[in-house]
Amino acid sequence: MIDILFAAPAAYWDEYQTPLRRALDNVGLDFTLTPDCPDPEQVNYLVYAPGGPVSDFTPFTKAKAVLSLWAGVEDIVSNKTLTLPLTRMVDNGLAEGMVEWVTGHVLRHHLGMDKHIHGQNGIWRHAAPPLARERTIAVLGLGELGRSCASALAALNFNVLGWSRRQKNIEGITCFSDEGGLNKVLAQAEILILLLPLTADTRQIINTSNIARLRKGAILINPGRGPLIDDDALLTALNTGHISHATLDVFDVEPLPSTHQFWGHKQVTVTPHIASQTRADTASQMIAKNIRRCEAGATLLHLVDRTAGY
Amino acid sequence: MIDILFAAPAAYWDEYQTPLRRALDNVGLDFTLTPDCPDPEQVNYLVYAPGGPVSDFTPFTKAKAVLSLWAGVEDIVSNKTLTLPLTRMVDNGLAEGMVEWVTGHVLRHHLGMDKHIHGQNGIWRHAAPPLARERTIAVLGLGELGRSCASALAALNFNVLGWSRRQKNIEGITCFSDEGGLNKVLAQAEILILLLPLTADTRQIINTSNIARLRKGAILINPGRGPLIDDDALLTALNTGHISHATLDVFDVEPLPSTHQFWGHKQVTVTPHIASQTRADTASQMIAKNIRRCEAGATLLHLVDRTAGY
Repeated sequence: MIDILFAAPAAYWDEYQTPLRRALDNVGLDFTLTPDCPDPEQVNYLVYAPGGPVSDFTPFTKAKAVLSLWAGVEDIVSNKTLTLPLTRMVDNGLAEGMVEWVTGHVLRHHLGMDKHIHGQNGIWRHAAPPLARERTIAVLGLGELGRSCASALAALNFNVLGWSRRQKNIEGITCFSDEGGLNKVLAQAEILILLLPLTADTRQIINTSNIARLRKGAILINPGRGPLIDDDALLTALNTGHISHATLDVFDVEPLPSTHQFWGHKQVTVTPHIASQTRADTASQMIAKNIRRCEAGATLLHLVDRTAGY
Repeated sequence: MIDILFAAPAAYWDEYQTPLRRALDNVGLDFTLTPDCPDPEQVNYLVYAPGGPVSDFTPFTKAKAVLSLWAGVEDIVSNKTLTLPLTRMVDNGLAEGMVEWVTGHVLRHHLGMDKHIHGQNGIWRHAAPPLARERTIAVLGLGELGRSCASALAALNFNVLGWSRRQKNIEGITCFSDEGGLNKVLAQAEILILLLPLTADTRQIINTSNIARLRKGAILINPGRGPLIDDDALLTALNTGHISHATLDVFDVEPLPSTHQFWGHKQVTVTPHIASQTRADTASQMIAKNIRRCEAGATLLHLVDRTAGY
């Protein structure tokens, strides 16, 4: 019997208990699954999201792994009591939703769609946008999500540059790494997409000096993490026109406070952290698969590298 | 020496003379190219667009072919003096631009982008859109452009249905033909895209009875030809909400008169025939390639079927 603790906010339990039981059944495991934990020493696995009942992992002496429901684990990694193997969520639905949101918002800007959405005033402004192959897009972060988005944009013929901490090699994408590479990518990007994990190195990577490296009029799209951006530096750049528009799905504080300057800014589009959501069905299958692997002595998929922070 | 008459409006000559001469040189042809025609009997090929100097093709007794600069040839086919072989323009840039415009406008509706573009009012409406794989899109017309758009949407995981006069077989697309097939496609489409050629059979195909077959709240996107739609039937359907939005790039009369109801309608987006444009560079290469083929005794590419009308 495998004892699994569902250590996440109550709303997640409502969403996950049925699909997670089904997924665990489907991989043939003999298990208990509960959101309440009478005895931490009995627990074999924790399915985890921040904001739930567990903040101290010390009592879970027999647990084999913590399986995060979230793709971004920066809040979890910083918990010093967590020394167990930790896995990130990698969910097909997550990448699909992200590709759709990113592609849609890139095309909105590429096609200059707003001037038609807002300009229904009887004036026939016949000027076609350039083709995608004449447009350079940079994706910072080439993990599962960044890579999927970069490839989808390349399939639409955009000239796609990618940047990541470790050098990657992805078909159809011109890949860069290190600081020199970042400078080159920033200097060419007409549309810049942030899909980096949040680490000490990437926090406020979009700051005054990196913004200055962008072409005048560049567009920023952030479906990654709010703190990747220095908000004040971004607002200054929007006001000078150095950045012409920012489409932001994630923020330092969420929900974004109704008084925040982003809401009323004409060059900012706020979307409420909807670029991509973990879907209970597919996420449950991933968790069940990983527990089955661990029970069979195989390595866990999507293990977090604590040193890198993701 | 091959004598080529450029029979198109003057503005086209300004745009085309340099790239077309270059393209003809590049395929090794010995030619003259002129927009003026002292002697029709000397002309071997006509590069043609409506609105230029030629409306009667009878005097061109030695011409081998008419090469249209336009993809849509309905205005040309109806000219009874034209009995020469006629080719349509098939331009890579044309299909690329169309795929970008169609994908962008589909994603705008799929993602519910407008409520964020218009709703920057401090309210955090956290509701993610469905995934593309949960959304059914229909493409009417599976020629070069329709097929390219259908495949691009399928690559984004949309459930794509296609309909054409002749039954097609395209990977990843569920293809239908004939009237029964059209009824099935209309009944399932959440977003309907018109990329049909304009013929006697397709004129006003979007009429009261076919609109009634659509699901309530369907979205219509027309980058094909204006007369595919009965405008009055569309306006009625928009006003009852049976069609929730129409994004229209083409119209019965262009430019769309500033007094037309479409301009002020909240559920209509007008774009000024920009979904796709023939690009002088790539179009010139296609024309040069086709003339070289004809001179070498090969069949012309993209020959128009006069009976079908395209």
